[in-house]
Amino acid sequence: MYRTHTCGHLRITDVNRIVTLSGWVQTIRKFGAISFVDLRDRYGITQLLFGEELQPLLDVHPLGREFVIQVKGFVQERENKNAHLATGDIEVLVSEFDILNTALVPPFTIQDDTDGGDDLRMKYRYLDLRRNVVKKNLELRYAITRSVRNYLHEQSFIEVETPFLIKSTPEGARDFIVPSRMNEGQFYALPQSPQTFKQLLMVSGYDRYFQIVKCFRDEDLRADRQPEFTQIDCEMSFVEQEDILNTFENMIKRIFKDVKNLDYEEPIERMSWEDAMWRFGIDKPDTRFDMELTNIKTLFQNSKSKSYPELIAGTDFPVFNQAETVIALVAPECGFYTRKQTDELTEWVKRPQIGMQGLVYIKCNADGSYKSSVDKYFDEEKLQAIAETCGARAGDLILLLAGKEEKTRKAAGELRLEMARRLNFRNTETFKLLWIIDFPLFEYDDSSNRWVARHHPFTAPKKEQIAVMLNNDPSIKNAENYLAHPFAEIKANAYDLVLNGNEVGGGSIRIFQKDLQEKMFTALGMSKEDAMQKFGFLMNAFEYGAPPHGGIAFGLDRLCSIIGGSESIRDFIAFPKNNSGRDVMLDAPSTIEDEQLKELNLQWRGK
Amino acid sequence: MYRTHTCGHLRITDVNRIVTLSGWVQTIRKFGAISFVDLRDRYGITQLLFGEELQPLLDVHPLGREFVIQVKGFVQERENKNAHLATGDIEVLVSEFDILNTALVPPFTIQDDTDGGDDLRMKYRYLDLRRNVVKKNLELRYAITRSVRNYLHEQSFIEVETPFLIKSTPEGARDFIVPSRMNEGQFYALPQSPQTFKQLLMVSGYDRYFQIVKCFRDEDLRADRQPEFTQIDCEMSFVEQEDILNTFENMIKRIFKDVKNLDYEEPIERMSWEDAMWRFGIDKPDTRFDMELTNIKTLFQNSKSKSYPELIAGTDFPVFNQAETVIALVAPECGFYTRKQTDELTEWVKRPQIGMQGLVYIKCNADGSYKSSVDKYFDEEKLQAIAETCGARAGDLILLLAGKEEKTRKAAGELRLEMARRLNFRNTETFKLLWIIDFPLFEYDDSSNRWVARHHPFTAPKKEQIAVMLNNDPSIKNAENYLAHPFAEIKANAYDLVLNGNEVGGGSIRIFQKDLQEKMFTALGMSKEDAMQKFGFLMNAFEYGAPPHGGIAFGLDRLCSIIGGSESIRDFIAFPKNNSGRDVMLDAPSTIEDEQLKELNLQWRGK
Repeated sequence: MYRTHTCGHLRITDVNRIVTLSGWVQTIRKFGAISFVDLRDRYGITQLLFGEELQPLLDVHPLGREFVIQVKGFVQERENKNAHLATGDIEVLVSEFDILNTALVPPFTIQDDTDGGDDLRMKYRYLDLRRNVVKKNLELRYAITRSVRNYLHEQSFIEVETPFLIKSTPEGARDFIVPSRMNEGQFYALPQSPQTFKQLLMVSGYDRYFQIVKCFRDEDLRADRQPEFTQIDCEMSFVEQEDILNTFENMIKRIFKDVKNLDYEEPIERMSWEDAMWRFGIDKPDTRFDMELTNIKTLFQNSKSKSYPELIAGTDFPVFNQAETVIALVAPECGFYTRKQTDELTEWVKRPQIGMQGLVYIKCNADGSYKSSVDKYFDEEKLQAIAETCGARAGDLILLLAGKEEKTRKAAGELRLEMARRLNFRNTETFKLLWIIDFPLFEYDDSSNRWVARHHPFTAPKKEQIAVMLNNDPSIKNAENYLAHPFAEIKANAYDLVLNGNEVGGGSIRIFQKDLQEKMFTALGMSKEDAMQKFGFLMNAFEYGAPPHGGIAFGLDRLCSIIGGSESIRDFIAFPKNNSGRDVMLDAPSTIEDEQLKELNLQWRGK
Repeated sequence: MYRTHTCGHLRITDVNRIVTLSGWVQTIRKFGAISFVDLRDRYGITQLLFGEELQPLLDVHPLGREFVIQVKGFVQERENKNAHLATGDIEVLVSEFDILNTALVPPFTIQDDTDGGDDLRMKYRYLDLRRNVVKKNLELRYAITRSVRNYLHEQSFIEVETPFLIKSTPEGARDFIVPSRMNEGQFYALPQSPQTFKQLLMVSGYDRYFQIVKCFRDEDLRADRQPEFTQIDCEMSFVEQEDILNTFENMIKRIFKDVKNLDYEEPIERMSWEDAMWRFGIDKPDTRFDMELTNIKTLFQNSKSKSYPELIAGTDFPVFNQAETVIALVAPECGFYTRKQTDELTEWVKRPQIGMQGLVYIKCNADGSYKSSVDKYFDEEKLQAIAETCGARAGDLILLLAGKEEKTRKAAGELRLEMARRLNFRNTETFKLLWIIDFPLFEYDDSSNRWVARHHPFTAPKKEQIAVMLNNDPSIKNAENYLAHPFAEIKANAYDLVLNGNEVGGGSIRIFQKDLQEKMFTALGMSKEDAMQKFGFLMNAFEYGAPPHGGIAFGLDRLCSIIGGSESIRDFIAFPKNNSGRDVMLDAPSTIEDEQLKELNLQWRGK
């Protein structure tokens, strides 16, 4: 037996016990003829005392950092207790020890603040995983999945495994494909999500399904995207949107309770997609702080957002006059910004990622006066009217962006987040949840002049708009005025759960009628044959008694990272890949033996 | 809201309630102007009563089998109660109904004894999954995984997800490979198991890891093998074999308690591999019944099995005299077998799958006399001696096989199972567990005249035999006498868990020393460079403080099927593949768009 106790177990009540411990040497401190060793395992650290009589043996078999040792000894009360350590009242006076394995000096320190860079830590991921911060992240991840499983079990959900070797249906993202040796010329694909399977399980009457499952997308990786990622995938039958929102509102609250002991008591706010876009410039607003946008001017008659064109009417400022949209944002207590600082902000919005032409500012001075970058066009009275409308107070800084509607709105949203970052409003210990609802069913894709599904092709239009969808020709005659097409107005029973400005979950009520599903595929530009070839099994299934159903999927990696207070999902994945999709520890992907390719009857294509 | 209650909920105490139910029409029975409908969902069946006043509406909107409907109504006590149904005391008098979806007539009946063949049921798997027997199987599977997760959680295990896109290391089985678009000319492989990752997690100090995870093997499929399958994968640090056997003995007992309410109280028997092979002719004996083999003659001096060569010594039967081995098996109460039946058994052992030359039988007559197929060579006294040694009693039939040792032993094991099948000894409601231990570390591969790992290359030899492995040259000079090589004697701390004659789990104590792991790869004929290229990350990890560790993996699909009392694992997988690795519902694998292949810079190789 390697141990009688773990390194986190022993307490003052264990004094006088003879124990055996095993673990890693964390530190060695020599004081004359005696040595103290901190012995570490997953459960904690126990101080070992090697007395004088063991020194000759230690001289022959010296210990080193990260050596794996086994010791037998006697638990005694410490002279200098350590209140920071659960085992800090005791130490083990070692009578025998055995070096189970030696260790080279690790290439970086096994500490919270390690000196190892990203690449080195990834190459030696098995050492990086020893660090307490990383271990805590994986423990948090496990705690979250356990909380989810317990909650869903209590709600009568059943976990069902769906297959990984499925059929390639290149809608949306790109599939990873897997050549089939036994079916020459054919390929499996790895699932981007179990979407169609969970819908089939509803047709099969499983009523409430979930699965915590790996999904795969062969996309060009942006920072913090992984080619394989984990979803909490859920589906329910005989439900409306309200049932799903309630079920999963309780799930996320349960997670916070179970893993953070946090009572998230208030109901989760619900906001329409339209409101989110106008009030925050983004479909996943961070509502830990206010700083709402004020829509001063809008081109579009049908905008539901209140605008205040009178504020800028009659002035001669050509930038505002020519702009489709003018949007204002108040940065609280930033009225003291210097010219250098406002110039720097101007440069920030002109970066290609943001792409604005410039930035107008109005400083609300402490004495009630105003100073702006457009003093030439706006007198004090006009500036005051803008400030009052935006809710700016003395000492605040108002930032104004003007340009094309969608671009300006998006830029204002980005600027809002950037100012919040600078003002330290994005506190990782504060958690703010939000449902975004009433998404448009379609988005317009100008490259192909057709509709694409905003969520996915299985999302249902709102009940009262089914007729609009069934009774209109989806083709867009006038690309310039696509917003006038009846499809532009169709909203979906789709919903996203947003946590601190990140989409952590999303789903929808699904289409469950064959004719509507066919119409959807047609609307997306798919031929009948193509739709049948790809999704025939689902449309056939809809003919044999498909119930109304809907679901949601959560991105587990992202959810863990936000709850864990980190920006990076990689810190919450045991063996992540880098931005080129490589596992640098394994050195994967790698070349394979030619024999393997031959068996698949494949070869490289010439350049 | 689609329902106030499920179809399994309502009881006599709910009488007078106004309720809304949704579900599938299971049956419709018309009695004059009224109709009874059984409404089904996952939770049960509730009887609906459509009164006279609804008939005109039903005539316009007739219901059909598997239609999805919603009804509102009044719970009332039934006149004819149904004791077989949880809801059998009540019925719902319908006041309003709505057809949510119609259904075509299913291509087979949705009943336990369906009229659908295998192919049809697989094509319409979503309908097959509606059948109660299949649903019960998936519920059992979920109950087993839940039981496992709860038990392992209580035992301080942590579930960690390991990657699916890894590196191809074609040892053992064939990998499924995944071309990498972002790393041209390179491939990922899908994991055959998370073996190396769980070992790295031990190096990282995670101490107790588990994962319920999909694994992949691109093998020619035998009946009841799936290219993707699920493992309960576990690993522990600072353990010896005994710790692992105890931990997982309790896990399997907990499963039986949780899902079958069965108290498996006796300790699980442990049997050495050597014993299993001699006593049962197989490394996974079915010990629900006895019928042990009797080893009468063995060629090998070093055999640990007791043999009785005196029983056949001095007779002139050339088949026995020339054979390496003679093995006897007693078929209880089969002494009445006719000549036709023994002939048929003889044909059975001569089938190519068994491959014996013939079969000798001895009938133990009720009157104490004997009748054998070798009366010419064996007198009554000799026959009686054999019968007594084998433990045969009056009325039994003794079957004897002779030939090459390994082949004969295996054939006798097969014949034992076949006789048990004929005698109905293989009762699916009886459960018998068995640990097989002390496996040989190596097997001799005569095609390449080298050693192969019996379990896998990470399995450690028994401690006391490490020196044998380190200090001997693995190369085999004399292929004829490979058993004389010191490696042939090395045993592993490897163990299989056998349930009713099926291997449901297997594992080992692992190598955790770099030098021993290197020696293992050398012994398996891998060059140093090759070993480093494939498993360098693991051997490097062993240099940074690797703890002693070991683990086990259970085949979840098989475990479910045996506990569920079925021969077929497919019945316990929601969307299984057929014997050609095809999903006939999806029609996968399938051809892909040429664009997809081009992006990967791949093309078909000419014939």
